[in-house]
Amino acid sequence: MLLHDDRLFPADPVTRGIARRLYAGIRDLPIISPHGHTDPRWFAENAPFPDPATLLVKPDHYIFRMLYSQGVRLEQLGIPRKDGGRGKNKVEADPRAIWRLFASHWHLFRGTPTRLWFEHALSGVFGINERLNVENADRIYDRIAEKLEQDEYRPRALFERFNIEAIATTEGALDELKWHDMIRDSGWAGKVVTAYRPDSVVDPEFEGFKDNLERFGELTGEDVTSWSGYLAAHRARRAYFKQRGATSSDHGHATARTANLSQAECEKLFAKLLKGKFSAEDADLFRGQILTEMARMSLDDGLVLQIHPGSFRNHNPHLFEVFGRDMGSDIPRQTDYVTALKPLLDAVGNEPNLTVIAFTLDETSYSRELAPLAGHYPALKLGPGWWFLDAPEAMLRFRELTTETAGFYNTVGFNDDTRAYLSIPARHDVARRCDCAYLAKLVAEHRLDEDEAAEVAHDLAYRLAKEAYRL
Amino acid sequence: MLLHDDRLFPADPVTRGIARRLYAGIRDLPIISPHGHTDPRWFAENAPFPDPATLLVKPDHYIFRMLYSQGVRLEQLGIPRKDGGRGKNKVEADPRAIWRLFASHWHLFRGTPTRLWFEHALSGVFGINERLNVENADRIYDRIAEKLEQDEYRPRALFERFNIEAIATTEGALDELKWHDMIRDSGWAGKVVTAYRPDSVVDPEFEGFKDNLERFGELTGEDVTSWSGYLAAHRARRAYFKQRGATSSDHGHATARTANLSQAECEKLFAKLLKGKFSAEDADLFRGQILTEMARMSLDDGLVLQIHPGSFRNHNPHLFEVFGRDMGSDIPRQTDYVTALKPLLDAVGNEPNLTVIAFTLDETSYSRELAPLAGHYPALKLGPGWWFLDAPEAMLRFRELTTETAGFYNTVGFNDDTRAYLSIPARHDVARRCDCAYLAKLVAEHRLDEDEAAEVAHDLAYRLAKEAYRL
Amino acid sequence: MLLHDDRLFPADPVTRGIARRLYAGIRDLPIISPHGHTDPRWFAENAPFPDPATLLVKPDHYIFRMLYSQGVRLEQLGIPRKDGGRGKNKVEADPRAIWRLFASHWHLFRGTPTRLWFEHALSGVFGINERLNVENADRIYDRIAEKLEQDEYRPRALFERFNIEAIATTEGALDELKWHDMIRDSGWAGKVVTAYRPDSVVDPEFEGFKDNLERFGELTGEDVTSWSGYLAAHRARRAYFKQRGATSSDHGHATARTANLSQAECEKLFAKLLKGKFSAEDADLFRGQILTEMARMSLDDGLVLQIHPGSFRNHNPHLFEVFGRDMGSDIPRQTDYVTALKPLLDAVGNEPNLTVIAFTLDETSYSRELAPLAGHYPALKLGPGWWFLDAPEAMLRFRELTTETAGFYNTVGFNDDTRAYLSIPARHDVARRCDCAYLAKLVAEHRLDEDEAAEVAHDLAYRLAKEAYRL
Repeated sequence: MLLHDDRLFPADPVTRGIARRLYAGIRDLPIISPHGHTDPRWFAENAPFPDPATLLVKPDHYIFRMLYSQGVRLEQLGIPRKDGGRGKNKVEADPRAIWRLFASHWHLFRGTPTRLWFEHALSGVFGINERLNVENADRIYDRIAEKLEQDEYRPRALFERFNIEAIATTEGALDELKWHDMIRDSGWAGKVVTAYRPDSVVDPEFEGFKDNLERFGELTGEDVTSWSGYLAAHRARRAYFKQRGATSSDHGHATARTANLSQAECEKLFAKLLKGKFSAEDADLFRGQILTEMARMSLDDGLVLQIHPGSFRNHNPHLFEVFGRDMGSDIPRQTDYVTALKPLLDAVGNEPNLTVIAFTLDETSYSRELAPLAGHYPALKLGPGWWFLDAPEAMLRFRELTTETAGFYNTVGFNDDTRAYLSIPARHDVARRCDCAYLAKLVAEHRLDEDEAAEVAHDLAYRLAKEAYRL
Repeated sequence: MLLHDDRLFPADPVTRGIARRLYAGIRDLPIISPHGHTDPRWFAENAPFPDPATLLVKPDHYIFRMLYSQGVRLEQLGIPRKDGGRGKNKVEADPRAIWRLFASHWHLFRGTPTRLWFEHALSGVFGINERLNVENADRIYDRIAEKLEQDEYRPRALFERFNIEAIATTEGALDELKWHDMIRDSGWAGKVVTAYRPDSVVDPEFEGFKDNLERFGELTGEDVTSWSGYLAAHRARRAYFKQRGATSSDHGHATARTANLSQAECEKLFAKLLKGKFSAEDADLFRGQILTEMARMSLDDGLVLQIHPGSFRNHNPHLFEVFGRDMGSDIPRQTDYVTALKPLLDAVGNEPNLTVIAFTLDETSYSRELAPLAGHYPALKLGPGWWFLDAPEAMLRFRELTTETAGFYNTVGFNDDTRAYLSIPARHDVARRCDCAYLAKLVAEHRLDEDEAAEVAHDLAYRLAKEAYRL
Repeated sequence: MLLHDDRLFPADPVTRGIARRLYAGIRDLPIISPHGHTDPRWFAENAPFPDPATLLVKPDHYIFRMLYSQGVRLEQLGIPRKDGGRGKNKVEADPRAIWRLFASHWHLFRGTPTRLWFEHALSGVFGINERLNVENADRIYDRIAEKLEQDEYRPRALFERFNIEAIATTEGALDELKWHDMIRDSGWAGKVVTAYRPDSVVDPEFEGFKDNLERFGELTGEDVTSWSGYLAAHRARRAYFKQRGATSSDHGHATARTANLSQAECEKLFAKLLKGKFSAEDADLFRGQILTEMARMSLDDGLVLQIHPGSFRNHNPHLFEVFGRDMGSDIPRQTDYVTALKPLLDAVGNEPNLTVIAFTLDETSYSRELAPLAGHYPALKLGPGWWFLDAPEAMLRFRELTTETAGFYNTVGFNDDTRAYLSIPARHDVARRCDCAYLAKLVAEHRLDEDEAAEVAHDLAYRLAKEAYRL
């Protein structure tokens, strides 16, 4: 068997026994996926997924960054170049060739979560219980390709099979959300909601910021050349998103900086940005101010505010130039929260009806900053391990570093944050197993009673995400 | 049973067996509590403690910060407001109501040290072996209340029952130490000593700094308007404290910064501060200089110098305004030691007869800075996990992150640092168990022999604290 | 027995069983030691080692820093003072007295890697299976001294007995490498290569920088007063070193800063440095530029570029003044890689044929920066735990913090980095055991199959170092 029933459980028999019992109580709970990047078009059109490589390899950053690190060129993996790619830069068009190349590098993923997710999909979705290798690559490819043509492998059928109770996608502020409308109009019962991600109209350094603002004004009928009109436009779009089920906004700035300027300062800063002559500091201050504005709007409309800071985007200029954004070269940086979040917390941190969820890529902040902050401010909660930290060892550290100060109930359960649809059951399963393993250790060491651990396991797997995100 | 005999011991049977044996050898050792915040008045007057909520809930920051983080208002917990509290801000006066509210939130403490400490007090002090819940809250309240009226639950009786060999309280430089005098004059044999905490006359940004200095001069008869007189006043107060048993001074600056200015620079800086026109940098530099001055005085009078840096005090301005200091919103920050401590270490770091104990709230400094520094400088030792880090997982990390570089013998055993009197046996017990668990792992993995581990366990539980603090 | 066969293996029987099997498959592999500080003269002359204290105690920084931290003076350990040492500063000349002093402090090393290394040497090299103590110190001393006179304890015999396939020493750019020539000319088959460490001609703040440059010009016949001549001199010395087997250069700057200036800027900066009037920033920028220049030369000559940043050298000015460099007071500091390495990575990070190996003393960079960087850039690999991090717990953290993001194959196996010759087999053995322990946990938790783990264990113990360093 590719997947052992006891995977990720501690080896000690007593602890493993507890982990098994805890897991048995939650393994079949529905999936709440409150933050992620699946494509709503899948659920709107319900078309079959294409070939195995296009489904499982090409869109997965975890996969192509690892292969790239070992000398595989992105062209070989079928990643499109901006210039189309010719001659020695030809982009591989044959999905089977991409699959074979991937299979020949499968050993690189030993010890990584990609290994766990991929094999869970192979086994759980496609019933394939062989370890991928060069020899069986073609056979596995064919078997997956064959399944993908069947109706029960279409997006909606998988949604039901995955037992997804609710899933959130993420769309930009200017998105018209037509796929979400189409899903709703289709009469299909699957709950697919959007989330408000306004980077393109919030970040003065975003490509096309001024044009984006113009479109922002058109969509809302607000005068976005004034600060008050600009805020009104946000309110309007948030309401529009909320009508399509949104329960949250999401913000991925380079730092966790927030600001709380006076209205006059905001007007002055905004006017400066509109003129296009501004410093990096001006842009950064503005992004920080917007977080506080979003939090204030959340007090009114109830959207949950998600802050995903600390990534140095597009660290590799060569890849950015040739392939564009999101090519696996976003690198975490040290991230301060104590001073960065203070202006926002000063403004709204004591509001018990507000939910601000902070994420991090910098584990040093867990015990030092985030657990103490979330263990104090009523408005602040801790998001689960994000991105590189969505992995078994990192999940264990997350619990070890935060629980003693913030407890379990200032965290918000799991979210998968993925565009890799087939990995969703795997990711939630890994998270559930890791939390059960952690809880089993607490029980085995007589730090928690098993009946309590069972309740916590259920909360972490289901209730906390559902409640925190108001789904 | 609420408390399992094997709690906090690793589940693996061999390792657990070793841990049990090591623990059996030290569990009944007397408690050395060289740093803490119990009230000397308790021991002086030996009056009965009041009701359960006032004893166990209201003064415990760990408890009220967690409840506050989940939307409980501090008024509901009986925390006094500066304005007295009226109408919707009425402060709860009924201890039983506070106790019930606390009981209804008991699940929040799952996985936290508060859970372990509280249940140890319930079971060990009051003989209550039920898990607290809404149903039994009143019954448990009554049972504790009834006991508190009995003589064997008065402060001195508990002191003896807790097997405390020596305990240090902490008093400000201007404190007359009348409770300590009263304890001594009473003829009671309990060893309760003070410690010198001069923040109010050392920190130019402390409320009432100038008035404090004036009082400092009055108390000592020194001319505190001159730098040399100011230092002489410190020497005088240190001697006064030392007569009341003090063996240490304690300093809780925002950073670990130290300075080593020339006498002329000191005089100039001090004069500037006295005039009241100084920058934040001046104040910070002065605090840093004082640490070095204190270390020099320690060379003469033998007091141990404790440095507790890295807390952003009163991070929540709303709570500070309404309730005042110490309302659970102190948040740790990144703390540098390598450059910060250098001026002090340059001056006195090579003195083998000096003991400077550094604490941290920033675990990243353990393996990177503090263990290498303490593993080199004769004068420098590492304090145990402090505050948020006084918890089982954090204690394990402390050993794992420091032992390989600094060994066990550049650490100073445990201190409880608490004002929660009834938690003292629990805290020492948790520390002893965690150290035994760590040592048992070393023995089980054949990295240390069991006879050596037994000696180390004894040292960590008793000897190192006693010797480092010269108690 | 001093050394248990199962040392460093997890106590859980199933996991230990797996660890044993994995270890059995690699324990006898030859040692590849691609980075270290043994003295090539040993292998050239093959003279007997002197007494036990001079061999095992005096040159070992790990040992004398620990003893110094507990009040032992360096003079007592026979460390030479610059002033010779007289009166109360007399330097101990009797190796037996040093040995006894060391033995009386042996308990300080409980829980440290020094304990493991030393006992491995006692047992594995000298067949002594007693724990060192005050009583047996003389007897053990005599036994070692007796052996050291025998031919089979000479450097080359030990080299063969240690099963060293290849070892790299480290020499400065101005070294004539005569010992390496002598080794080669001797006809002895042992593979001892050098490595290019050009600090003295690269760091403008190095003692005697200008004189060093002059010598650099003499040795190479290049005009090192021009930037292009200076670079040519480096190329010439690299070629000279490469002829003596070098496969790598090594760089130990205070930070990981790199730079990528234009040629005009380089020329200007170099001219400024030659004049001797430059700022600390100029010097730092220059060091950063050199790293990028070295990387470019590596593209041509194939030398591997090693970066060892983040040590605050000679933190203790008193020891530096009295004893000189390298007296155990180098202290790690926080180290940034994300922005620091960017100029170099922008220039050459996408080159699949270049190998840049980054080390760290700051574990916070592992999961946050180094694993994401190495898991992306083809040219970048992660070095193993260095110095204070060359220890069992730290090794485990290294794997736990890097594998999930960078996998095993962006790391480069182990290197011992030591001048303590007798500790080499011990260090490699500890690393092998720790890696097997980590892998066994993955297998026991069904995260990796045992056949794969066996392959990884072999790679980590042997193949990766050999391939990364092209040995």
